Amino acid sequence: MKNLSAVLQEVLRKIKPSYDECNELKQVIAQVMNSVKQSVKRRELDVDVILIGSAARNTWIAGDRDIDIFIGFDPRVPRTDLEYFGIEIGKEVAGDSYVIQYAEHPYVKAKISGFIFDIVPYYRVDVASRSISAVDRTPFHQQFVTANLNNKEDEVRLLKQFLKGVGVYGAELKIRGFSGYLCELLIIKYGSFLQLLNDAADWKRRKCISFVNNEIAPKFDNPLIVIDPVDPKRNVAAAVSTESFFNFIDSAREFLSKPCIEFFFPPPIKAINAKRLKDILTKRGTNIYAFSFKMPELVEDIAYPQLEKSIKSICKALSRIEFQPIRTDIYYRKGNAVLLLEFLVCSLPPLYRHVGPPVECKEHAQKFKDKYINDPAVFSGPYIQESRYIVEIPRKYLTVEAFMQKQLKNLKLSEAVYTSMKSGCNILCNEDLLKIEDQNYREFLANYFQRRKRTCE
Amino acid sequence: MKNLSAVLQEVLRKIKPSYDECNELKQVIAQVMNSVKQSVKRRELDVDVILIGSAARNTWIAGDRDIDIFIGFDPRVPRTDLEYFGIEIGKEVAGDSYVIQYAEHPYVKAKISGFIFDIVPYYRVDVASRSISAVDRTPFHQQFVTANLNNKEDEVRLLKQFLKGVGVYGAELKIRGFSGYLCELLIIKYGSFLQLLNDAADWKRRKCISFVNNEIAPKFDNPLIVIDPVDPKRNVAAAVSTESFFNFIDSAREFLSKPCIEFFFPPPIKAINAKRLKDILTKRGTNIYAFSFKMPELVEDIAYPQLEKSIKSICKALSRIEFQPIRTDIYYRKGNAVLLLEFLVCSLPPLYRHVGPPVECKEHAQKFKDKYINDPAVFSGPYIQESRYIVEIPRKYLTVEAFMQKQLKNLKLSEAVYTSMKSGCNILCNEDLLKIEDQNYREFLANYFQRRKRTCE
Repeated sequence: MKNLSAVLQEVLRKIKPSYDECNELKQVIAQVMNSVKQSVKRRELDVDVILIGSAARNTWIAGDRDIDIFIGFDPRVPRTDLEYFGIEIGKEVAGDSYVIQYAEHPYVKAKISGFIFDIVPYYRVDVASRSISAVDRTPFHQQFVTANLNNKEDEVRLLKQFLKGVGVYGAELKIRGFSGYLCELLIIKYGSFLQLLNDAADWKRRKCISFVNNEIAPKFDNPLIVIDPVDPKRNVAAAVSTESFFNFIDSAREFLSKPCIEFFFPPPIKAINAKRLKDILTKRGTNIYAFSFKMPELVEDIAYPQLEKSIKSICKALSRIEFQPIRTDIYYRKGNAVLLLEFLVCSLPPLYRHVGPPVECKEHAQKFKDKYINDPAVFSGPYIQESRYIVEIPRKYLTVEAFMQKQLKNLKLSEAVYTSMKSGCNILCNEDLLKIEDQNYREFLANYFQRRKRTCE
Repeated sequence: MKNLSAVLQEVLRKIKPSYDECNELKQVIAQVMNSVKQSVKRRELDVDVILIGSAARNTWIAGDRDIDIFIGFDPRVPRTDLEYFGIEIGKEVAGDSYVIQYAEHPYVKAKISGFIFDIVPYYRVDVASRSISAVDRTPFHQQFVTANLNNKEDEVRLLKQFLKGVGVYGAELKIRGFSGYLCELLIIKYGSFLQLLNDAADWKRRKCISFVNNEIAPKFDNPLIVIDPVDPKRNVAAAVSTESFFNFIDSAREFLSKPCIEFFFPPPIKAINAKRLKDILTKRGTNIYAFSFKMPELVEDIAYPQLEKSIKSICKALSRIEFQPIRTDIYYRKGNAVLLLEFLVCSLPPLYRHVGPPVECKEHAQKFKDKYINDPAVFSGPYIQESRYIVEIPRKYLTVEAFMQKQLKNLKLSEAVYTSMKSGCNILCNEDLLKIEDQNYREFLANYFQRRKRTCE
C-alpha cells in the first residue's frame, strides 16, 4: 500500500497546471477579454465583462480547456436585447469557429487558440436570490468561492480528479454527479480533500451541509443537500443522484483504506470483442437485448432523460407481463442510441395468471366474471385466491421480442425516442450485440459486464 | 333460468329426511340413549345424558348419519375420572365396533345400526364462559338454538347443503368453512336462507354479527365475526378462512342471479386420465411437480396444518431463489400425501443477482465487499444500484429439483412431514403426475385444473 500523501502528491503532479500552461492560459484569456471589451465599447453598451469559473478561481485541472466569459447587463435591459447583443459580441470575438448553444438563453461557444470559450450574457442582479436566469447566480458563486477558498485550490483539484476517476464528476444528466462549484464548496466546508473523505465515509442519505449556523433548510428531497451560501432556496447538490451519492461514499471508504492512484486515474476500459462476449454470455446464461436506433443528434442533456424515461416505461411494461429485466443500461453518442436490457427469462409458457378485482368490489367482480366465465380460451378459473379473483388465460406475448415488436406504440416513450424507434429499431440479442460496430459502444459493453470496483494490487 | 322457489323446493325434497328416516333415527337414538343411561346407572354416576347436535335440533340432512351423545359430569370430578368413565361407558355401549378419538380429551366413536355415534364426556358448567374444555360449551349452544330457531329447520338445511355444494361447509382444517352451529346462528339472525344470501352478497371483510344490541365486540382478526351468544369472548366463525368467506359471498351473488340446483349438488368430478392430462399440460406449458410421500395415518385435522405449514416453507424458500410457484395444492388421504407446485419457470440460467446491504450500513458493507471483491467466481460487481450493493454470482440451484433434493433438511417443514419426506419422497413432474395410482388423487388433480365455478346452462 502506497503512502497516502505520496499518492496525493503524485496525483497533483499530474493535474496541477504547469507554469507554462498557466502563462499560456493567462495570455489567451487576456487576449479574448480584450476582444470582448472592444466589441462592447464599439456598441457603447453599459455592461460588465468578467472571467468566470475554474480558470478565474485557479481550480482548473491541467489540460482542461474550458473558459467562461460572462457579459453582465442591467436587469432593466429587455431579454431580447440581452440575447441579441450577447450573441453578436460572441460571434464577433469568435471569428469563424463558433456554435450557438441553448441553455436558459442562447450563448456562443467558440474555439480560440485551442481553448473553448463560452461567452454568456447575464443580468447583474443585486442579490443571487433575485436571479432572473440561472446564470445570473454564477458571479455570486465566484465571489463566495474567491473570498473563502483560502488557498485550497489544490484540494479542489484533487477532489475533482477523484470524482472523475470514480465516475461521478459533473452535474450533467448522463452523470448526475458533483459540479465544479459543489467541489469548491465541499473543500471550503471541510478544509481539505482528506477531511472531506473522512467525513463522507459516514454520510447517510439526506446529508445536509450549510454555511450559516442554525440555518433552517428548506425541505429538499435529495440524497445530498448543500445549501447555496448565496441563495438558501437552492440545493447546490440537487443534481447528485442516489447512486452517485453512494458511489462517492463507497469510493471514499475504499480509498481511505487502500489509497492508490487508480482511484484518480482508472485503467482504460478495453472494448469488448466477439470471443470475450461469447465467453461472458456462456457463463452468465442470461439473455441480453440491445434495442438499437438512430436518433436526431441531440445534446446529451436532452437525449439522456428521454432515453431514461423510455427504458423505464419499457421495463415497467415488460415486468407487468412477467419479463422482469435484471439490469439495464443506456448508450448514447451523437445520435446513436442503444437500450440494453438483460433477462433471466425471455420466453414464458402460454399460461398467464391474471389477477382480477377483489371479491369485495361487487361491480368490478361482476364485470370480470362476465368477461371470463364463458370464455373457451380460459385454462382455469375464475377462482378465488385470498380475497381476489384469479383466472388462468393464454399469455399474449410469449417472448420479449414479440412484445416489443407489437407494443412499441403503446409504451410511454418520449416522442423523439418513439419516432426514432418506429422508423427503424434493430433488436439484437446476445452474440449479435456486436453487430453494432462502434468502438465507444464496445467500451460501454465492456464496462457493463465489468462493473467491478477498481482495486489496487 | 329456473324459478328460485322451485329450485329450493327441489333441494328440500332431496335433503329433508323422510318420515321413515326420522322414525329410524328416533328409534336408534332411543335405543342408544337407553344403553348409555343403563351403563351410567350401573356405575352409580351422577351425570346427565343428553342428545346433542343436528339430530337433536332437527337440522340434519337426509342421509347424514352422525349423532352426538354427551355425558355431563360435575365440574368437581377430576379430569382423569371424567376421561376414564367417558371411555368405559362409550365402549360398553358400542360393543365391538368403536375407535377412541382424541380431541381436547378422548371420546368413543361407535358404529351402531348403521349410524355413527360420538359418545363424549363433558363438564356441566354454570355458564358457557366458564367452560373447562371446548365441548362444555356445546349444551349451551343447543339451548340457544332450540330456543331461537323458530321452526326454521329447513332453512338451516338449505344453507348447509348450499355450503356443501360450494365447498365451504365444515370447520375442519381441510375446509376452514362454516360449522353447523354457525349455520344455525346465521338463520336465526337473518330469518331465512334467501335473506342471508341477499345480505351476504354485500358483505365486506370483518363482517360482524352479534345477537345482543350494541355489543362491543372483542378485536377478532377474522374475515367473518359471529359473536357467540352464549360466550361473547368467542368468535363462532373463527375457523372461516378468507377464501371460504369470499367463496361464500361470490356463490351467494351467483346463485341469486342464476338460481340452479347445481349450487347445491355440483356435478361429480371425473378423475383425470393420461390423455386429458397431456392435453392440459400442452396447453398450459407450465411445469407441475408433485412431491409424493407416505405419512403416518394422522387424522386430517392434524395432517392438514402440518402439510400447509410445510408447503408454505417450501414456497418461501423457492421464491427466495426465484422459483416462484404460481399455484399450489395439498392432497392428503389416509397417510398418502402429495404437495403439488406449479411453476412458469423451473430452471434458470447460472447468473444470480445477489442483493447486498445498503451502502449506509458501513460494517455490513465492508463484510459484503470483503466476501466478494476478490472472489473469482463473481460475474459482475459488487456495484451500487440505488442505495445497495449488488453482486452477480453463480446460482447455487439451477432447477427446482436440484434445490429440493439438497435443501430438504433446511426447509422449515413440520417434524412429521420432514421425517416422511426424508424416508422416501417421489418427485414427479408433468405427465409423471399420474404415476400415483389413486382414484381420489386423480379427482383431486381434475379439480385442481378445473377450478371453474359451476354455471347452470
